[in-house]
Amino acid sequence: MQAGKPILYSYFRSSCSWRVRIALALKGIDFEMVPVNLIKDGGQQLAIIEYLEETRPTPRLLPRDPKKRASVRMISDLIASGIQPLQNLSILKKVGEETQLTWAQNAITSGFNALEQILQSTAGKYCVGDEVTMADLCLVPQVANAERFKVDFTPYPTISCINKRLLALEAFQVSHPCRQPDTPTELRA
Amino acid sequence: MQAGKPILYSYFRSSCSWRVRIALALKGIDFEMVPVNLIKDGGQQLAIIEYLEETRPTPRLLPRDPKKRASVRMISDLIASGIQPLQNLSILKKVGEETQLTWAQNAITSGFNALEQILQSTAGKYCVGDEVTMADLCLVPQVANAERFKVDFTPYPTISCINKRLLALEAFQVSHPCRQPDTPTELRA
Repeated sequence: MQAGKPILYSYFRSSCSWRVRIALALKGIDFEMVPVNLIKDGGQQLAIIEYLEETRPTPRLLPRDPKKRASVRMISDLIASGIQPLQNLSILKKVGEETQLTWAQNAITSGFNALEQILQSTAGKYCVGDEVTMADLCLVPQVANAERFKVDFTPYPTISCINKRLLALEAFQVSHPCRQPDTPTELRA
Repeated sequence: MQAGKPILYSYFRSSCSWRVRIALALKGIDFEMVPVNLIKDGGQQLAIIEYLEETRPTPRLLPRDPKKRASVRMISDLIASGIQPLQNLSILKKVGEETQLTWAQNAITSGFNALEQILQSTAGKYCVGDEVTMADLCLVPQVANAERFKVDFTPYPTISCINKRLLALEAFQVSHPCRQPDTPTELRA
């Protein structure tokens, strides 16, 4: 990290890559992107975000207060362990074409039911208080996945509202899947 | 945390609860256990471990060096996001009785294939170097799950060997599912 430009192996559509792209944009880190057409996804990219936080502490992605940090990690883990792995490409393939939409919707809505309730006690402008944190980096890509799977957002007013606020921020825009070097022309915006 | 004894809502069989029980034992934290017969599992308990690390820093569960910390988190996330959620009870129920053994074995072996390779470059006596870390707290409960699903360990000599070393430590023994207040008599050891 200290020596030379970091390389991010990224896939435009991957919610895990997107989380890391937001972190890099927020911290103003110049990086080289090597697009990889990922099939296999995972939640492992939280380790990259924690590493960035430790080596480039400004701006903070984890609050100073241990209880707030725990809330941020709880929300991040709820998404990265509790939702995303259950609706990623490799799982949906195994589930089979007929049932995969319902499967993905169930995985997301049971996670979002818990998340909506948690956010009602932790959120300010963003997921935890009024500063952008790692939890927000996890939220936006997961909401985009939910939209792809046509999840009904009526029961999730807090999630929707925070997501809209975040999408207005530049770091979330430059890192968006519709604006990556490997985004196919028909998906660009 | 500072005021009064912490309460852990725990389920003897849950690999997520077990990870936290190991952390509590390693840090010598006296706690009250409230057994909950969990069906719904999740990886969210890593947030508890990180919180314990921040509020009770001794003994360390994350190495001081940022690159080693990243290895620890990568391994922990590989297990907590990449393996455990795909083979937990609620998913296996959805998959259906006929295929659930194969499903669980596939989820675990594809994760363990990656893990075995990573450990070959990070491991010393334990997952990362010669000190017990959060990665080890994730490894042992996941290996126990693999054993329940009759995964063949021949391709995983590094995983097996580290697991054996860890199971010899007291913190891993007192926290073991076969020795919890809610362990049914026939599973006690």
